[in-house]
Amino acid sequence: MSAKNLTEPFGRRLRRLRERLDAVGADAFIETFLINIQYLTGFTGSAGVLVVTPERAVFLTDARYTIQAREEVKLAQVQIVRGSVLDAAGTMLKRAGRLRVGYAPSRMSVLQKQKLARSGGSGIRWLQWEDLVEGIRSVKDDGEIATMRKAARIAEESIRSVLAMVKPGVKEGDIAAEIDYHMHKGGASGPSFDTIVASGKRSALPHAQPTDKRVRKNELVVLDLGAILRGYCSDITRTLFVGRAPARVLGWYRAVLEAQQAARNVVRDGVKAADVDAAARAVLAKSGLGLYFTHSTGHGLGREVHEPPRLSRESGDILRAGQVVTLEPGIYVEGVGGIRIEDDVLVQANGCDGITTIDRELLEL
Amino acid sequence: MSAKNLTEPFGRRLRRLRERLDAVGADAFIETFLINIQYLTGFTGSAGVLVVTPERAVFLTDARYTIQAREEVKLAQVQIVRGSVLDAAGTMLKRAGRLRVGYAPSRMSVLQKQKLARSGGSGIRWLQWEDLVEGIRSVKDDGEIATMRKAARIAEESIRSVLAMVKPGVKEGDIAAEIDYHMHKGGASGPSFDTIVASGKRSALPHAQPTDKRVRKNELVVLDLGAILRGYCSDITRTLFVGRAPARVLGWYRAVLEAQQAARNVVRDGVKAADVDAAARAVLAKSGLGLYFTHSTGHGLGREVHEPPRLSRESGDILRAGQVVTLEPGIYVEGVGGIRIEDDVLVQANGCDGITTIDRELLEL
Repeated sequence: MSAKNLTEPFGRRLRRLRERLDAVGADAFIETFLINIQYLTGFTGSAGVLVVTPERAVFLTDARYTIQAREEVKLAQVQIVRGSVLDAAGTMLKRAGRLRVGYAPSRMSVLQKQKLARSGGSGIRWLQWEDLVEGIRSVKDDGEIATMRKAARIAEESIRSVLAMVKPGVKEGDIAAEIDYHMHKGGASGPSFDTIVASGKRSALPHAQPTDKRVRKNELVVLDLGAILRGYCSDITRTLFVGRAPARVLGWYRAVLEAQQAARNVVRDGVKAADVDAAARAVLAKSGLGLYFTHSTGHGLGREVHEPPRLSRESGDILRAGQVVTLEPGIYVEGVGGIRIEDDVLVQANGCDGITTIDRELLEL
Repeated sequence: MSAKNLTEPFGRRLRRLRERLDAVGADAFIETFLINIQYLTGFTGSAGVLVVTPERAVFLTDARYTIQAREEVKLAQVQIVRGSVLDAAGTMLKRAGRLRVGYAPSRMSVLQKQKLARSGGSGIRWLQWEDLVEGIRSVKDDGEIATMRKAARIAEESIRSVLAMVKPGVKEGDIAAEIDYHMHKGGASGPSFDTIVASGKRSALPHAQPTDKRVRKNELVVLDLGAILRGYCSDITRTLFVGRAPARVLGWYRAVLEAQQAARNVVRDGVKAADVDAAARAVLAKSGLGLYFTHSTGHGLGREVHEPPRLSRESGDILRAGQVVTLEPGIYVEGVGGIRIEDDVLVQANGCDGITTIDRELLEL
C-alpha cells in the first residue's frame, strides 16, 4: 500500500471534523474517547488525548506509547507527556490562545473536565458538542464496509462451527468458549461483547451471560455474538431449538422473523429510525406479542457495538446511506424462553444490503 | 448456600459505604459505575444507577433487566424505569429531600452530571468523592481472595498449555487465540484485557496487540494475560526466549527478576506504594537499565484489572493488608525487544503472599 493510502482515510476524517469546527466557529476540539482517537489518528493504544485545530492535530500520550504512537499516528503531531495529558492539553490550548473549544460531554468525566478547565484557564469558552466524531464515524467508507463484511463472515463462520456441538448435556459456557475460539482463529482481535449463549428459560433474559447450565432437549437456545476485526464490530443473533419445535414456538419465531423483515423493508437513506422500529413493533403487536418485545429494534454498528443511529421508538435519528445498523427484534416470555433474530445491514439510497447473510430460518437441532 | 450467605457480602459492603456517608454527614451516594454497582448489589447487567442512603438502597434500571435484576439484586430495591434512569434518580433524590449527595467525578460524565443536576433541582449540594467505593473494594475478603487465586490458576494453566506451541513460524495471534480459549474452557468468563503476545522487536512495545507476525528463532516473546472469574481479574506476564538466550538477554532478565524480587521484599501492610516502586527502580538503575523501565511497578487488581492502589513513583497510596497488587517491572529496548515479569501478590500484615505462583525463571524454548 502506498504512503498516501495509509494516511488517506485519516486526512478525510480530520477534514470532515475541521469543516464542522469551521461551521460553528470553534477554535479546537478535544477528544478523550479512545475509539474516536483511533478513528482520527490510527493510534491503537489505551491512553491519550487528541486536540484538533483548524491548522493541526496534536496527540498527547505517555512514555509507554513512545514507539507505538510514532509507528501508528499518521497525521497528528505526537507529544509524549510526563504527568497528566489533560493538564498538558489544557496548557497547550491556553498558550495557543484557543478561545472556543468543543468537547463531548458524554465522553468526558467531570474530573477530566475540571482538570482541563483548570489548566486551560478562564479564557476558554467550552462548547458542548455531542456525537460530533460519532456522527462522522456513523457513515462508513468502502474500506470500512469491506472490513465489516469480513467481521460478519467471521461471526457467521463461528456460528456454523458450533452448531454440531449444541446438544443436550453441553454447557452454555463451553459453547461460548468455542464460539470465541473460532472467531479468534478466524482473525478477530476479540469478541464485540461478551458472547451470549442462553438456553431454556434463560433465553428470556435479553443479556444473559453464559453459565454452567447444560442445554436440554426441547429448549430454545439464543446465540448472540460478534467479532472485532481491525477495530470494526459485527453483531448477530440466531435462535435455535433443541429438538422439534412445538407449534407455539414456531408461531413466535415466524412473528419475530416477520418483524425483522418488516424493519428491513423500511430501511433506506432518509427514513426516520423510529419508523424502522415502528415497523417491527407493529408486526409483533399484531401477533399479540407486543408486550414481550422489551427493547428497541436496533442500533448503529461500527467501531462500537452500539453507536448512533438508534432504532428505537424515541429516536430522532434519520438513517443515512453508508450507515450500518442492526435489526434485532426479539420476544422474551418469562419462565418459558426467548427468541431474537439479529442481522446487520448497510443503509443504501433505495434500501439496504445485508452485511450478515446466513440463513434466518429456525434451526431445529 | 443459605440465604444469609448469599446476601452477607453485600450487606457488609453497603454497611461500610454507609459508615463513610455517616462520617461526612452525606445524605446519599449515587453510583453510576457498573463494576461498583455489581460489587454493592450483585447486578451483572450493563445499565443502571444505584442510590444508597443511610436507610435504603435503590437500584434503577430499564425493562430489559426486569427479570435479571429481580434474580440478582439482593439488598437494594429494584425500580424499573422508562426513560432516563438518571432523571429518575435525580427526581427521587429531590422528592426525598436529600441535600448532600456524593458522587465520584471520575466515574460520571459531564452529561450524566448535568442530567442529575437538572432533575435533582437546585436544593442538592453535590459532594465530589473520588475512590469511595474503590477504596472499600481494594481490601478483599476471604471469598474474594479465594476467587482471585482461582482466576490466577486459570491464567497460569493457559500459559502452560501454550508453551508447546511457541515455536518458530507460529503467529502471535494464534498463540493469543489459544491462550483465550484455554482460559475460557478453564472457567473464565473472558480475558481481563486483550491478551498480549509480542515477539522480537515488538516485545519492546509494553502494550502490543498480537498480530500476524510469526515468532522467529532467537526472539523474546512476552505473554501478558489474565482471566476473569466471577468478576475478578488475574494479570500475569511471562517472557520466553525462542532458542538459547545470549548472555546480554540473560543479564537483562536477571535484572528484571531481581527488581521484581526487590519490590516483593518491600510489600506489606502500611508501606508506601511509592517505596515498592522505588525498590524495583533502584535495581534496574544499578544495572544501567533504568531508562528502559518506562512504566510504573504495579497496580491494584480485583474487579478491575487496574484499580487502586497505584505502585508508581508519584503514588501517595499506602498498602493495606487484603489488597492484591501486581508487581511488573519491565525493560523495553527499541529495535531489540522487551522483558517483563508480572505477578500478583496479596498484601499481608508482615509481607506478601503470591496469588500467581508459577516459575519465574526465563523459559528457553
